[in-house]
This record gives sequence, structure tokens and C-alpha cells, in this order.
Amino acid sequence: MSKVFSYNQLFDFTENVFLKIGCSEEDAKLAAKVLLSADARGVDSHGIARLGGYVRLWEAKRVNANPQIKIIHQTPSTATVDGDSGLGLVVAPKAMQIAIDKAKQVGTGWVSVQNSNHFGIAGYHSMLALAEDMIGISMTNGSALVAPTFANERLLGTNPISIAIPAGNAQPFVADMATTTAANGKLEILQRKHGAAPLGWIQNKEGKPSTDPHELKNGGALLPLGGDKEHGSHKGYALGAIVDIFSAILSGANYGPWVPPFPAYVPMPEGMPGKGIGHFFGAMRIDAFRPAEEFKRHMDKWIERFRSAKTAEGFEKVIIPGEPEKEMEEVRMRDGIPVLDPVVDDLNFLAGKFGLTMKVPAV
Amino acid sequence: MSKVFSYNQLFDFTENVFLKIGCSEEDAKLAAKVLLSADARGVDSHGIARLGGYVRLWEAKRVNANPQIKIIHQTPSTATVDGDSGLGLVVAPKAMQIAIDKAKQVGTGWVSVQNSNHFGIAGYHSMLALAEDMIGISMTNGSALVAPTFANERLLGTNPISIAIPAGNAQPFVADMATTTAANGKLEILQRKHGAAPLGWIQNKEGKPSTDPHELKNGGALLPLGGDKEHGSHKGYALGAIVDIFSAILSGANYGPWVPPFPAYVPMPEGMPGKGIGHFFGAMRIDAFRPAEEFKRHMDKWIERFRSAKTAEGFEKVIIPGEPEKEMEEVRMRDGIPVLDPVVDDLNFLAGKFGLTMKVPAV
Repeated sequence: MSKVFSYNQLFDFTENVFLKIGCSEEDAKLAAKVLLSADARGVDSHGIARLGGYVRLWEAKRVNANPQIKIIHQTPSTATVDGDSGLGLVVAPKAMQIAIDKAKQVGTGWVSVQNSNHFGIAGYHSMLALAEDMIGISMTNGSALVAPTFANERLLGTNPISIAIPAGNAQPFVADMATTTAANGKLEILQRKHGAAPLGWIQNKEGKPSTDPHELKNGGALLPLGGDKEHGSHKGYALGAIVDIFSAILSGANYGPWVPPFPAYVPMPEGMPGKGIGHFFGAMRIDAFRPAEEFKRHMDKWIERFRSAKTAEGFEKVIIPGEPEKEMEEVRMRDGIPVLDPVVDDLNFLAGKFGLTMKVPAV
Repeated sequence: MSKVFSYNQLFDFTENVFLKIGCSEEDAKLAAKVLLSADARGVDSHGIARLGGYVRLWEAKRVNANPQIKIIHQTPSTATVDGDSGLGLVVAPKAMQIAIDKAKQVGTGWVSVQNSNHFGIAGYHSMLALAEDMIGISMTNGSALVAPTFANERLLGTNPISIAIPAGNAQPFVADMATTTAANGKLEILQRKHGAAPLGWIQNKEGKPSTDPHELKNGGALLPLGGDKEHGSHKGYALGAIVDIFSAILSGANYGPWVPPFPAYVPMPEGMPGKGIGHFFGAMRIDAFRPAEEFKRHMDKWIERFRSAKTAEGFEKVIIPGEPEKEMEEVRMRDGIPVLDPVVDDLNFLAGKFGLTMKVPAV
């Protein structure tokens, strides 16, 4: 089913692929680091499984391997960035750095990005703020897979939001979530297993609730967090909409049903109103509100109180957002990263194409 | 069941009650305006129904009718505000104004507030940004009614978030939502009707899913948006947690299970780590990212595209966040505001207490 590679094996290979498509050394390293942070943290759908997809976007001339990323509008606390069709894996951390630099100057920094591509996991970018004692925020829109409440049409991407908050002795609080009930990656797992999806994840092409994980390929749609109106799906829809507007209408990127698809073989939407896909980043210096040590002491208390909460029967503990991913990262950096066979096949295909060697698995 | 009053009747009465507890004329008008914006917009649980509750908090010396609201920490884009135990109805719009003033200077403004009280509907405050061509953000924590995913303990309030976004010819986009599956107000309606709540709204005191709307009084809890883990409740829990942290840990207010309760007869939590309840506000100038006219043209296009989406069978149209409240406001400003009999009784009690006259209903 899968083969296990060390992080370094996957990193070297990924870096080399990005070098082969023409990225600078610096950008190739950065893109590999961002992409593989997904595999390390257990978000397999957004990591090396997508490497071939990025290459195919470059072949389709939808990705520019040497982007001139530039600020096209700014104030002391904001910037609008043109990603010049670069890899989102490169554009996003550079835009987040601009937000951090603004926060150093005036307390907070906010950056909206146009003309980018998929940026890997949102959590990588928000977490860049942690080392600076800042709260980090990142979000992105994506191609339309989600039907708003009452709609029988896909108008929003899974539009994730990540917020990373520093703590003291405790691990940081890191939320990273699609604004849908379930991420597309979970649906893919059910598709492989031929399992049924819980009601509230998807609807079929008639707009009716469905449990068939294949509906998405048959004209169905993912559902906003909440699942249906009675369970608050209008809130998940509003959250996805806000991500779309902050990422794309503030920046001048495409939005709603006009966001370019990730698979290079899917035709571009007609009548696109903007440039590429959009992201939005924020950085807030803790000490712009109160001394960082005070804040961290209270974050530790908050985390300790929630972690030690009385649990409902059958559950071991209350989880602090980011804990499972952090634990997974420790395991995978030590024991290696399992890569599914179809993904290994795709990596071997890329190896052949670029004259690279996929080294044998570590384990 | 209910009596209908004109907005002006309710406004005059509410203003007079706030004057009687010692608010300045300016503050009494402001508090009445904020409180009644809930009734006007159809959020009956947060409006005049709570007037008696605010008076009882004042009697319990938990509300200061003449607060010295001050900035205790700031940078060009941020401020931390001490509400001096004032009515949240007064503290919040003043703190939001500070965010707006900062945004005028440096593009965005972000204000965290300690030592406040309940602030009415979140949407009132976020919408203050609209007239300035800014995006407005508001959130608040509240006393613990919500069990995090896997917990059998109430650790979070319903912690609402509101985001208001200007449009051009279209009405603004205004999301205003508790981070729970259902707001407490909806549960109260079911309690009065003796109806069953959908699964995913509440759990009982054993931490099991329940459909009994009275469970909250019997030691049960509201559930985070999503309802259960399988339906993404860890995301609703993370959102509620972020509201708690931005509102209270950034500012120095109380958080988690230590947030003071709204009913004055409920004892204060032991070992409170901060001051009062906390809020968080943001204002982002549209033209800090791109020219406002461009942005608004695209917002109109976004709204038009979503409003005209193909609907699933049985549904008339896709709703833009804020539309139903705006329509309700037009109806109620014209036809009057229905007030439930038990609330009318409480208003008559207040009238007697303060020597005021509750005028006969308009209709």
C-alpha cells in the first residue's frame, strides 16, 4: 500500500524536481520545505502527493518558476502582493514575511495576494509568526468544490483558515482547517476504502444529501462546515465566503466559481475576473497588546485547563488544536514518512522525466 | 404572546432606564441604540429582553455606569482598552471607534478589550466600519455554556464573530454568528414550544448527544459548530477558542470557565485570572489594499453570482449573509417590534422601579 521514506530523502528529491523546472536554489529549497511540512504533519493530501500536480501546472505554463514577487499597493500595516504566477509554495511564505515585517514596525501586518497558486498547508505560513512572538493568520481560496447553503452549484473552494498562537512552556495553539465539514483528503481515503461518508459531508448532483464519497466526481459538492442549515451550514458558508473575499477581492485574484483548478488538465473557468488564486496573511505582535511573557503565562494556563477538562465517556482527553499534528511530526521525522504506492509511482515517473534517482525507501 | 411597540417607544424607554442607573446622556443614547439594533434585526435574544439583566448587573455593582474607558497599551495599529467595568454596549462601540481611527492612520486597527460586560450583538460593532469603507470585525467571549469536542464540561461561551464587508450597489455582506451549532436564543424558542432540538446542538450532563432543549439547565452543554467530531466540531471548538484568546488573553480579561456570567444571581467563578469579559475588534481600510471602487464593483459581482446560484430542490435562493437581518430591520422599523409578554412584564417592572411610563403598544 505504501513505502516509507525519510524526510531527507523526500526533501532532496522534491528540491531537485523544483530545480529541474527552473526554480532558483533558494526557491527550490523553500518550496520543498513548505510542501513537505504537510507530509511531516500528517496532512498527506497536501504534500508530496501533489508534487506531480505542480510540475504539470508548470508544463501547462500556469506556474512561473522565476516569479518577480512584488508589492503593488501598501500602507504601514498592509500590502497587496502580486505573486507573478509563482508557486504558492514560494509566494506565500514571502508574503507572510512581509506581514511579519510590517508587524515589527506598527504592531500588525496584513497582506492580500493575487496571481498565486496553491500554497500547501495553511498552517506552515501562520506558524512562521510563532518564532517572532506573533500570532499568525493564513488563508487561501481554491477552485470551487463546495455548494453554499441551499445551492446546487459549486461556488467556493474548501478555503482553509489557519491561526497560530504562541504559548510559553506549552506547545503553540495551531488551528488549520478547511471551512467545510470534511476536508477533501478525508473523502479520498473513503473513496479508496469504498466506505460511506457521514451525512453532512457531501451532496449529490441533484443537491440532495448523500453518503457516497464518489459524488464529487459525479457532479456533487462538498458541504460547508455544519452540513445543513439546521446544523449551521450557513456559518461554514459565511466563513468560506470571508476567506474568498479577503484572499481574492481585496487582492484582485479570482474568486467564487472563477478560481483556477489545481489539476492542469481541467480547463480554466470562462470570464475570469482576476489574476490567479488569492491568499491572505496576518501577523499580530503579542507585545502590541500586552507583554509577551504575561500573554504566554495565560496561554499556558488556558491550555492546561482545557487539556485537563473532564471528558465525555469513551474519550481520553480534550485536544488542543495543533497537538495531533505536532505529535505526528515527531513520529515521522524519527520513523519516516509513508508514501502511498500510486504517489510513489508518480514520483518515479517524475524521476524518469527529469533524470533523477528516487532512492530506495529508508525502512 | 407578544405586544408590538414602535422602535422609538422602545428606544425612549431604554434610554430612560440607562439614564436612571446613572449613565450620561451620551452613553444612555449609545447603549439604547446598540441594544435595540438586536431587536430591529430580529435577534430578539440579545435586545430589550436583556435590559432587566443589565439593570440587575448594575445593582450587583458589576456594571459601572460612568466608566473611564482608557487605552492601557498601544502601537500605531493596535490598542488594549480597559473598559472600567462599563456596559459592553458603551465600551464596545468606543473601542471599535479606536480601531477605525487607527485604520485611518496606518491602514488597519486592532483593539482588544478587558474589563467589559456583554456588548449586545456583534454585528452592530463590525458594521460601524462600513460607513468608512472599511471591513469591520468584532467578537466577544462570554460565560461558559459550550463543551469542547470530547469534553463533558462547559469551557467556552457561544463566542460570536461578526465580519462586515462593504459592497457597491448591493447591501453589505454581514456575517454575525455564534461559534456553536445553534445560538442559545434558538434553544430558548424550542424550550418555550417544548419542541425537540436537532442532534448536534446539545449534550446532556453525561456528555451524550441529546434532543431535549432543557438539558442546558440540567448540567448539559451547547456544542461547537459541527456538533460532533465526525461533523467537524473540532473546528467550531477551535473558532470559539480563538475568539476567547483574542478577546481575553490578548487583553487581560477572563477566559474559558472563568468568564463572569450574565445573570447577576449566578455567583462569579472562583480564581478569576483577569478582569471582566473581553472583546476584540478590527477595522481594515479597503483602500489599504486596492481602490475602494474597484473592490466594491467586484463585491457586487460576487454577491450577484452567489445570489443567482442554482438552488437545490425546495429552496428559493442562496442567501447572502446579512440579508435576512436587513429585511427584518426594514419590516420592524416600519411595522413595529413584537416583544414577548414575559419581557413586557419585566419592562413594566423596570418602569415601576424607576418611575417611568411604558407607553401603550403602538399597534
